[in-house]
Amino acid sequence: MPDESGTIPVHREPWAGQGLPPTLTWDERDGGVLRLLDQTLLPHRVEFRLCRTADDVWHAIRVLCVRGAPAIGVAAAYGLCLAARPLTHLRRPEFLAHLRAAADYLSTARPTAVNLSWALRRMLAHAEHLSGADGAALVPGLLAEAHGIARQDAEVCRRIGQIGESLIPDSAGVLTHCNAGALATVAHGTALALLYEAHRQGRSFRVFADETRPLLQGARLTAFELAASGINVTVLCDGAAASLMQAGRIQLVVVGADRIAANGDTANKIGTLALAVAARQFSIPFYVVAPLSTLDLSLASGRDIPIEQRAEDELRQVGGIDIMSAAIKCYNPAFDVTPAGLITALVTETGIARPVNARTIAHLVAAAATSDTRS
Amino acid sequence: MPDESGTIPVHREPWAGQGLPPTLTWDERDGGVLRLLDQTLLPHRVEFRLCRTADDVWHAIRVLCVRGAPAIGVAAAYGLCLAARPLTHLRRPEFLAHLRAAADYLSTARPTAVNLSWALRRMLAHAEHLSGADGAALVPGLLAEAHGIARQDAEVCRRIGQIGESLIPDSAGVLTHCNAGALATVAHGTALALLYEAHRQGRSFRVFADETRPLLQGARLTAFELAASGINVTVLCDGAAASLMQAGRIQLVVVGADRIAANGDTANKIGTLALAVAARQFSIPFYVVAPLSTLDLSLASGRDIPIEQRAEDELRQVGGIDIMSAAIKCYNPAFDVTPAGLITALVTETGIARPVNARTIAHLVAAAATSDTRS
Repeated sequence: MPDESGTIPVHREPWAGQGLPPTLTWDERDGGVLRLLDQTLLPHRVEFRLCRTADDVWHAIRVLCVRGAPAIGVAAAYGLCLAARPLTHLRRPEFLAHLRAAADYLSTARPTAVNLSWALRRMLAHAEHLSGADGAALVPGLLAEAHGIARQDAEVCRRIGQIGESLIPDSAGVLTHCNAGALATVAHGTALALLYEAHRQGRSFRVFADETRPLLQGARLTAFELAASGINVTVLCDGAAASLMQAGRIQLVVVGADRIAANGDTANKIGTLALAVAARQFSIPFYVVAPLSTLDLSLASGRDIPIEQRAEDELRQVGGIDIMSAAIKCYNPAFDVTPAGLITALVTETGIARPVNARTIAHLVAAAATSDTRS
Repeated sequence: MPDESGTIPVHREPWAGQGLPPTLTWDERDGGVLRLLDQTLLPHRVEFRLCRTADDVWHAIRVLCVRGAPAIGVAAAYGLCLAARPLTHLRRPEFLAHLRAAADYLSTARPTAVNLSWALRRMLAHAEHLSGADGAALVPGLLAEAHGIARQDAEVCRRIGQIGESLIPDSAGVLTHCNAGALATVAHGTALALLYEAHRQGRSFRVFADETRPLLQGARLTAFELAASGINVTVLCDGAAASLMQAGRIQLVVVGADRIAANGDTANKIGTLALAVAARQFSIPFYVVAPLSTLDLSLASGRDIPIEQRAEDELRQVGGIDIMSAAIKCYNPAFDVTPAGLITALVTETGIARPVNARTIAHLVAAAATSDTRS
């Protein structure tokens, strides 16, 4: 297992394209390569990190080269394909046992985003239904399933945008936090999918993006992708959002999610709870936007969601420079949990839950199951 | 007038002492020097900036070498003394006219902290009451008044600490924002004076300091001065405070103020409003701690408080490194306004206003006037 200091060799490739670079792509060359846009380098350098092993993918997820709950799930699915490649000689039972071990390993890269374990469980379940006596016979089917998860992610995000775009009034000021955009998914994004769709329809609005300390995903990623897409964006400190709301300049808040409990309590990037509280204070709608794969119905409430604590140095250092003595303690949770009661509505690919509670969420899930059966 | 790029020559001097360096000191050498601890360099370098002219002081205030509403007032008072020094040859009317012009100029260094104009008005009023036919006769009295303002600031802060310390329960988790400590005043601080006094009395508590973007006064200054004073301090991102409140780890919030309107609405460092809203949500007392010189009774409410908008590059760059393209717009107000209704109590050197409203504030001011008359 690689450690967090990046001791495994990292292979990179510059991007030669225009506009918004793809978050992740699969390349069949050299026996299969997962090409991840290295989001730790944005917006300064647009480079891909080439992953050829499950270790490479684990490490890329851990250091946030790829981040955003949906994108992490897709990356992990491809990571499992990379783990399977050297196992083609194994007979089916041994192959499946190794695959389960690789999935367990990949699922440890980050603890909060449930899409990670969701994608891995889906891959394992698919492997068990595939016919084939050995690894060589099973690997193509696994890769097809990973492609399916990636295609589905883009399609789900497109539908989320269509379902939610009407929530963006013309001339609105829209506040968002962290990055729940194209860079957090295969394409379109979750919270930002609403904005892309409203923009495509010619509606005019203005986005305010929290910079999102400590890792500045809002300043580095959301500003980058919205500006690249021609959407009016302004960055602010996380602490300044309440003053914009107080001044009447924000008409709605849209955020993504990393895990949603059965009752609608939502884990998302640290700072989200403060926004939800302020939105309630100033009577502003607060929307969580996420695919159904972000739901974890096994958890009754947000109290049960594991919260990743990240390294104190993420606060101590800014741009690689110490801003505090190493003797100063830091508190650095990656996520917080917003109670469902503070969420105006949950927007998913199958519809909108409003109000957000166990009953409306169960209803959305049931509707999705029915539509899956029909299709 | 020097510009913000620092084109005037800056003279520096390292500190050879131990413990917490003094925020500002007056030195009679060379015809008078105001020695300001350069807070832009903390915690890495402990150096003083030597101010020999009013321009030097204006610039030091503007670039936040000295900051904190009370300290800014004292620095401006000494700045006026520096402005007066070359005017000793002028006859009284011309001297006073030049002094008024210098005060007008110094008051433009930062628009929000009312202590700045309070201290300058007090210096001018004093000058007009001094007897003396020319500048040479008036300058010593002016300097004595500046010393009086500095002594009074330290004494007021000491009294604030004694009046407010009982608000800190044993074993409390105390959240604070920005720096309202010894570094924001001549000594002791405002919000942090409560903590210093409780600590002196042997009470045990734990401080959580918001890092306070964009200029990180919490991470750089509050952590530095509390750790130097042996107080248990942990730094967090501004957006993480609500999650600590939700988890029951915060028993009270203490913040300073830059200007307080007659009805108790309080301008303080951007991010304060979000804390006040979250404290209300989680039923946690939220205290504003400030000397009476921070009151601006000429303003009926917080709507009338001018809010300084600072350079967008404060957000764009971190540690001198760009984190966004220069094409991305930024919203960077230095302060926000917390409505009095969200403030549990206002702690001052003459007593505590609780609840905070025009009546309780008028009562504090009247009590102060009575005690001034008596002393």
